[in-house]
Amino acid sequence: MSDMKYVGTDVLRVDALEKVTGAAQYIEDRFIGPMLHVKMKKSTVAHGKIKSIDTSKALQYPGVKAVLTGKEYPNKIGLYLIDRNFLAVDKVRFWGEPVAIVAAVTEEAAAEAAELIEVEYEELPGVFDPREAMKPDAPLIHEDLGSYKVVPIFYPKPGTNIANHFKLRKGDVEKGFAEADFIVERDYKVPQMQHVSIETHKAAAHWSPDGKLTVWSTAQSPNVVRQLLSESLDMPMHKIRVISSYIGGGFGGKAGASLEGLVIPLAQKFPGHVVRIVFNREEDMQGTFTRQALYAHLKTGVRKDGRITALEYEMIWDGGAYTEYGVNIVRAAGYSSSGAYEIPNVKTDSYCVYTNNSIGGPVRGFGMCEMQWGIERQMDEIAKELNMDPLEIRLINGMKEGSKTATGQEVHNVGFDKCLKAVADKIGWGKKEGKYRGKGIAGLVKCPAQPSNASSSAIIRINEDGTAHILVGATEMGQGMLTAITQIAAETLHIPVEKIDIKIPDTDFTPYEWQTVGSRVTYTCGTSVKRAAEDALGQIYCIAANLLEVPEEELTFDGKKIYSTKDPNVKATIREIADSCKKCTGEGIAGPIIGRGSFVPSNMTNLDPETGQGNPGMFYCFGATGVEVEVDPETGVVTILQLVSAIDAGKAINPRLAHAQLRGGTVMGLSTALYEELRFDKGVILNRNFTDYKICSIDNTPHIDSFIIETPEEGGPFGARGIGEQPMIGVAPAVANAVNDALGVDFNTFPLTPERVWRVINEKK
Amino acid sequence: MSDMKYVGTDVLRVDALEKVTGAAQYIEDRFIGPMLHVKMKKSTVAHGKIKSIDTSKALQYPGVKAVLTGKEYPNKIGLYLIDRNFLAVDKVRFWGEPVAIVAAVTEEAAAEAAELIEVEYEELPGVFDPREAMKPDAPLIHEDLGSYKVVPIFYPKPGTNIANHFKLRKGDVEKGFAEADFIVERDYKVPQMQHVSIETHKAAAHWSPDGKLTVWSTAQSPNVVRQLLSESLDMPMHKIRVISSYIGGGFGGKAGASLEGLVIPLAQKFPGHVVRIVFNREEDMQGTFTRQALYAHLKTGVRKDGRITALEYEMIWDGGAYTEYGVNIVRAAGYSSSGAYEIPNVKTDSYCVYTNNSIGGPVRGFGMCEMQWGIERQMDEIAKELNMDPLEIRLINGMKEGSKTATGQEVHNVGFDKCLKAVADKIGWGKKEGKYRGKGIAGLVKCPAQPSNASSSAIIRINEDGTAHILVGATEMGQGMLTAITQIAAETLHIPVEKIDIKIPDTDFTPYEWQTVGSRVTYTCGTSVKRAAEDALGQIYCIAANLLEVPEEELTFDGKKIYSTKDPNVKATIREIADSCKKCTGEGIAGPIIGRGSFVPSNMTNLDPETGQGNPGMFYCFGATGVEVEVDPETGVVTILQLVSAIDAGKAINPRLAHAQLRGGTVMGLSTALYEELRFDKGVILNRNFTDYKICSIDNTPHIDSFIIETPEEGGPFGARGIGEQPMIGVAPAVANAVNDALGVDFNTFPLTPERVWRVINEKK
Repeated sequence: MSDMKYVGTDVLRVDALEKVTGAAQYIEDRFIGPMLHVKMKKSTVAHGKIKSIDTSKALQYPGVKAVLTGKEYPNKIGLYLIDRNFLAVDKVRFWGEPVAIVAAVTEEAAAEAAELIEVEYEELPGVFDPREAMKPDAPLIHEDLGSYKVVPIFYPKPGTNIANHFKLRKGDVEKGFAEADFIVERDYKVPQMQHVSIETHKAAAHWSPDGKLTVWSTAQSPNVVRQLLSESLDMPMHKIRVISSYIGGGFGGKAGASLEGLVIPLAQKFPGHVVRIVFNREEDMQGTFTRQALYAHLKTGVRKDGRITALEYEMIWDGGAYTEYGVNIVRAAGYSSSGAYEIPNVKTDSYCVYTNNSIGGPVRGFGMCEMQWGIERQMDEIAKELNMDPLEIRLINGMKEGSKTATGQEVHNVGFDKCLKAVADKIGWGKKEGKYRGKGIAGLVKCPAQPSNASSSAIIRINEDGTAHILVGATEMGQGMLTAITQIAAETLHIPVEKIDIKIPDTDFTPYEWQTVGSRVTYTCGTSVKRAAEDALGQIYCIAANLLEVPEEELTFDGKKIYSTKDPNVKATIREIADSCKKCTGEGIAGPIIGRGSFVPSNMTNLDPETGQGNPGMFYCFGATGVEVEVDPETGVVTILQLVSAIDAGKAINPRLAHAQLRGGTVMGLSTALYEELRFDKGVILNRNFTDYKICSIDNTPHIDSFIIETPEEGGPFGARGIGEQPMIGVAPAVANAVNDALGVDFNTFPLTPERVWRVINEKK
Repeated sequence: MSDMKYVGTDVLRVDALEKVTGAAQYIEDRFIGPMLHVKMKKSTVAHGKIKSIDTSKALQYPGVKAVLTGKEYPNKIGLYLIDRNFLAVDKVRFWGEPVAIVAAVTEEAAAEAAELIEVEYEELPGVFDPREAMKPDAPLIHEDLGSYKVVPIFYPKPGTNIANHFKLRKGDVEKGFAEADFIVERDYKVPQMQHVSIETHKAAAHWSPDGKLTVWSTAQSPNVVRQLLSESLDMPMHKIRVISSYIGGGFGGKAGASLEGLVIPLAQKFPGHVVRIVFNREEDMQGTFTRQALYAHLKTGVRKDGRITALEYEMIWDGGAYTEYGVNIVRAAGYSSSGAYEIPNVKTDSYCVYTNNSIGGPVRGFGMCEMQWGIERQMDEIAKELNMDPLEIRLINGMKEGSKTATGQEVHNVGFDKCLKAVADKIGWGKKEGKYRGKGIAGLVKCPAQPSNASSSAIIRINEDGTAHILVGATEMGQGMLTAITQIAAETLHIPVEKIDIKIPDTDFTPYEWQTVGSRVTYTCGTSVKRAAEDALGQIYCIAANLLEVPEEELTFDGKKIYSTKDPNVKATIREIADSCKKCTGEGIAGPIIGRGSFVPSNMTNLDPETGQGNPGMFYCFGATGVEVEVDPETGVVTILQLVSAIDAGKAINPRLAHAQLRGGTVMGLSTALYEELRFDKGVILNRNFTDYKICSIDNTPHIDSFIIETPEEGGPFGARGIGEQPMIGVAPAVANAVNDALGVDFNTFPLTPERVWRVINEKK
C-alpha cells in the first residue's frame, strides 16, 4: 500500500469550495413550493393527564390553516422500543412535550396561535432521578410498557420505569474479588448535556395528491427516517422519499427520527404545500434528545501487582420520558463496561430508566464518555492506592492483541499502548511542573453500536469521459465523510479525486445505508464503496479484454486508459470501453459502467441475554487523552496547559481530516469536562440558551496536539477504522485526573466548573 | 409467457394520478433559487455578415444584468457535425438566429432590452430551396464546412452547401430497370412542419461557485445534453448535472441540445442564480428544429406480375441553416429507401443541404414520413399502371420473414402482411361506397436511427419492505415510458407495479441512457431494466439459498416471500433477505439489493461508405394505415370517414398505452396530411402561431381504429419493439391514395388542404 495516491493524503475536502463560498445547500435551502409553517403547543407540566384541549381560539387566529392534537394523530414511533406518540395522547411525560401542532401561513402566526391553545392537565407526581424512579413506589411513567413493541434484544420491565436492563456476567466476579488484594469502590455521576449543533433540527414534508410523501430532514440517517415513518404511518417505503442535505452538525442529536412526524399529518391536509418546522435554539435544547444522565457505582478488585481481578458496575441511566436510542446506549455501555482493559471477571447491570426529564438519547460517544468516566477515574484511584504510576496501571491492564473484552470478544490490531505512550510522552509524563499544576491521562475504547445486520451499500457510475459519480446513503454533517469516501473510490478505481462527484443522500435515488452514527461510516460505507469500485474496475478490465482481445491479466489502468502491459499501444480509453458493444461475461454488462457494492459485518454475533457474552463489536478503536492543567485555588478556574489526543485510526484515509476529528472531538470533550451541564428543575431545563449554557468557544480552546496511530484493521477499507466519537471519551477523566494530580482532590462528576472545583478544594480544607 | 401478470395488461399509467391532479412537476416547477430571465436578440436577416453589434442601450435598460454576443461566447455545438455557434459570431444564417442574449430581473425587461440591441448586417444573397442550394453558383452558407468536426459516418462536401451525401447501391439498378416491364417516375415534395408540443422549449442553468453546473431542461435526452455541453464547454461530465422532468411532448423537437447553451454563460456570470429561458410559441415555431422539407425524385421499374425490380431514389433535403440531426435523418431515409418492400436493385442518393431556412431536424418518424410518402404514393401509381389492387402490389413486394432491406439486412419476425390485411379488412377494402368516396392504404416500416453503440442502463434497488425503485435515464414525454418500463420490471421481479417507484432522469443520479428518441426506449431501456431485474432477482435467490440453506433451484418467489417449492414453510421475506448477513457469492453482495443491467445492440454493423450496405437496424417495426375519405368537389374539403392503424408491436407491454400511441401517431399523421405546413418567405416563417398554423384538434379528429399485431421480436423485452413513431408514417399517403381513389387525382405533396385539393380537381377539369 506504499504506492497509494489518494488514500492517506491530505486531499482538500470535496465540499470545501461549496462551503467557503456559501454555495453549499443545507436542508432549508432545498424546500421548494408554497410553504406552511408549524409550531408546537408544548406541555407545561412534566407529568400529567390531559383532561382537555381547546383549539378553538387558535383555529380562529388569522393565517392559521389547521390545528392537530394527539387524538387525531395518535401514531407512534420508536427505533427499538415504540413508546412515543408524535403528539401526546392521554398524558404528557415531560415538560415541553408536543401536545398540539399548528400550521399557519407564517411562523409567527403559528407560534401565536399555539399559545392560544388551552390545555387542562391533571398533574401527576413527577420523578426526575432514575434512582428514585427505580423504586417500587415511584410514579409509573409508562403504564402500558408491557404492550409496547420492542426489538427482542432489549428487556423492559412492565410495571416499573425500567425500559431496559442489560446484564453482563463474565467469569466469576465473587471469585475475582476474593483474589484481589484490595477493592476500590466509588459512585460516579454524569449529567445531561446537549449537542448544540450549529444547525438546529428542521424538517419539512410534502404530500403529492398521488400519495407520495417527500420529507426533507436534518436527520443523520435518511434511511432510518424512512423506515420509522414507514412503520409509523403504515406506508410502503417507495412512497416515502427522504431528502437529506449537508447537516450543520449531528453528534447523535440528529440520529433516528425527530420532528419529521410533526409536519407530515399537516402536509397531508394540504397537498402541494411544503409544511415546515424549524426548531429555535430553545426548542432544540429542550425538545430533542439530551445525553442521558448516569448514576453509577463502580467497584474493582485489584492485586498488588496492579492486575484488576474483578469489576462490578451498576449503571442507572436517566432515559428521560421516552427512550428512543436510550435502551441501546445502556446496552452498549453495558457490553463495553470493562473499558479499554482486559478484566477476567465482570458483572454489570445497566438500566435505562424512565423519568420525567427530556428524552434521553445519543451524543457523540454513545454512552462511552459516561461509562468510561468512572473507569478512567477509578484507574487513577487504583494507582493512588497502589502508589503506582497511573500510566503503568493502564498499560498492565490495557487490552492487547488477542485480549478479551467484557463480552468475551477477542480484539485484534490493538494499538492502545501506543496511544497511551504517545500522549504521556507528549505531555512530559512524570515531570511535575509546579504546585498547582497537574497531569492526567485517560484511555478509551469504542466499537460502533450497531446491530449485526446493519448494512451499507454503494453505487459507482463511470461516465463516458472517465469521470465518476458515487451514490451512497451516508450523510455529511461536517465530519468529512464525502471526502474520505471519495478518496477510497479514487484509490480503488485509479481515478483522481477531482474527477469524482459524490452525492448527498436522497432515499429515492441513493442506495441503502443503515445509519450515519457510531463512527462506522468510513468502515462500512467505505467498504461498500471500495467493493463498488472494485466491481466497476473489474468490468472495465473485462470489457477492455474483449475489446482489445488480450487476456484481462495482461491489462492495467492508469485512470485514463487501459492498456496491455506487454504492449502499451494496445489500449482503450474509458469512453471507448463505455461505448463498446463488446460485452463482459453475461449479457447484463456493457456500455457506461455501473459498479455496486455492499457490506454487512460478518464478525458480529448476538449476545447471550443472561450473560451478555458474544461479539458486539465490528471493530474496536482505542485511544488515549493526556492533559496538563493549572488550577487557581482561589477561584477554582482550571486552565488547560496541554491537551493531547491519540487515536488508533488503523489507517487515516485523510490525515488532515482525521486530525480535525481528533481536535474537534477533544474540544467537545473539553467542553463537557469544564462547562456543559443541563440544569433541570423538575424536568424544566433552566439553561436552554447560549447565555446560560456555556460551551467551549474559540477563546477558551487551547492548542491541541493530535496523534494518529495506525495499526491497520484487517476488515477496514485500506486498514481504516472509524474515529469520529473516540477523541471525546477520554477528555473529562483526563482533565479530572490532572486536577487530582495538581490538588489531590477527587471528582466523581463533571463538568469541573470553577464553582465545583472551588467547593471540592474548600471541602478538602 | 401465458402466465404473465403485469406485461400485456392495461396497467393504469404510473403517472396518471400525478398528472390529473396537477401535481406532476414540469421543468419550470423545478427551478429553485433567485432567478434571472433571458431573452434573445434575433437576426432580422436570413443571411448576412454581422458588421457591428451595439449593446450599450440594452445594458442601460433598467433591470438588465448582462448582455452577451457571439464574440464573447463563441462556443460551438453539434451532435454529428459541429456547425453551429450558440450565438452567431461573424454571420447569421437564418432569420431569427440568436445574435445576442440579455439577462434581466424580469422577462419583460430582458425582452425590451433585447429589442434595443442594434445590429448592423451586410446582407448576403439567401438560398431557400435546397435544389437551388446544390447548384455550383449558389451562395455558400458555411464557408468553413471543411474544417467542421464531423462523425465519420457523414460526408459533408466542403465548398458546397451539402452537409451530407448518403449513397446506397444495392444490386444493379440499371439491370433492374432493364428487367422491368415498365417504369414509374415521379417528383415528390414534403414541406416543413413543426412539432407544436404543448410545452415549449425551456432551460435554466445554475453555476455553483465550486464550478458545478446544473442545467434544467425540457430536452428529451439529458445524457446527450450533458455530452454536448461537456464537449462544447470543455467541462468534465461529472461537473455538469442535467435535470429532466416530465416533458409536455417531444416528438423529436426536444432531441439533442437546444437552448441550454443560451443560459449557461449568463449563469456563470451570476453564480447562485437560476438563469432561465422559456420560449414563447412564436420562438418555438421559428427558433427550434423544423421538419426538413424534402424534394425527391423516385423511379421504380416493375414487372407485369407486380414485382418491383429496381428503385432509384434521389432525395434532396432542406437541412436549413444548421444541420444538427439533419445529416442523420438523411442517412436514415437513405438506408431505409425501399420502404417496407424488398427490392433487389436500389440506388439512392440522399442529400442534406444547407439553406437559409430555420434549422432542420427530427420529427416523429425521423425522415420516414417524408421518404415513404413517395414510396407509398408510387405503389398506388404502379398499381394503377398495372390495373392491380394496391393492396396486392404491396403484399407482393412487401417484406416477409428473411427479406432483405435496401442495405441487405435480413429482417425477421415480420408481420407486415398482417398489418396490411388488418387495415384493409377494417375499412372494407375493395368496396366502393359512393362517387366522392375513396379508400386508401399505405404500408410503413421504421427501425430506430441510432449508432451501433448507443446503450441503455438501469438500476433497480429493492427496499427492505420489498418495494422497489427503478432508476433509468429515459424520459417521460407523454408516451407512457415510465409505465411500460415499470411493467417490465414488475413482471421480471414478480413485484406488483404499485410497489415500484420509477424516477425521472437526473444525470447525477440516474444511469446512462443514450437518447429517448427513435421508438427505441421500450426495447433498449426495457431490456436493460429486465436485466437489472433479473440481476436483482438472482441476488434474492442466492442470498435466500444461503439464508434458508436450500439449493437455489428449489426456491420460488411470489413477490412477498421466497420459499422452497419442496417445503413452503422454509421461507424468507425480502426484509429478512435484505437484513441478512448471509452473503451471495463474492463479498460484494449483501443487504438491500441493487440490481443493474445494461444493453447495447449486438446485431448492428457499420454501413459501407460507398454502397450503404450493412445492418443499420436494431429491429424493424412494420405497420399499415387505411383510410376512407369523402371529398367535397366544390370546396376541396376532405372528410375522413374511416381511419385505421395497425402496427406490429411484437408484444404490447401495455395494450391500452400501445393503442394510445397508435391513435396519437395517427392523429399527428392526419394533421400533417390535411393541415400542417410551415410557410416560408425568404426564410421567414409566416405562420408561426396557432391562428395561422392549423393542427388537427379534437373537433376535426375522427374516430380511429387501431390494431396491434404481435409478431414477437426475439431481442425485445418479452418480444416487444418500439412503436412510438410508426403510426404517423402511413397516414398522409393513405389519405392521398384515398382521395386519388375518390377522384382519380394525383398528389405529389401534402397537406391536402381544401385549396390544394380544389386546385388539383380544377386543374384536372
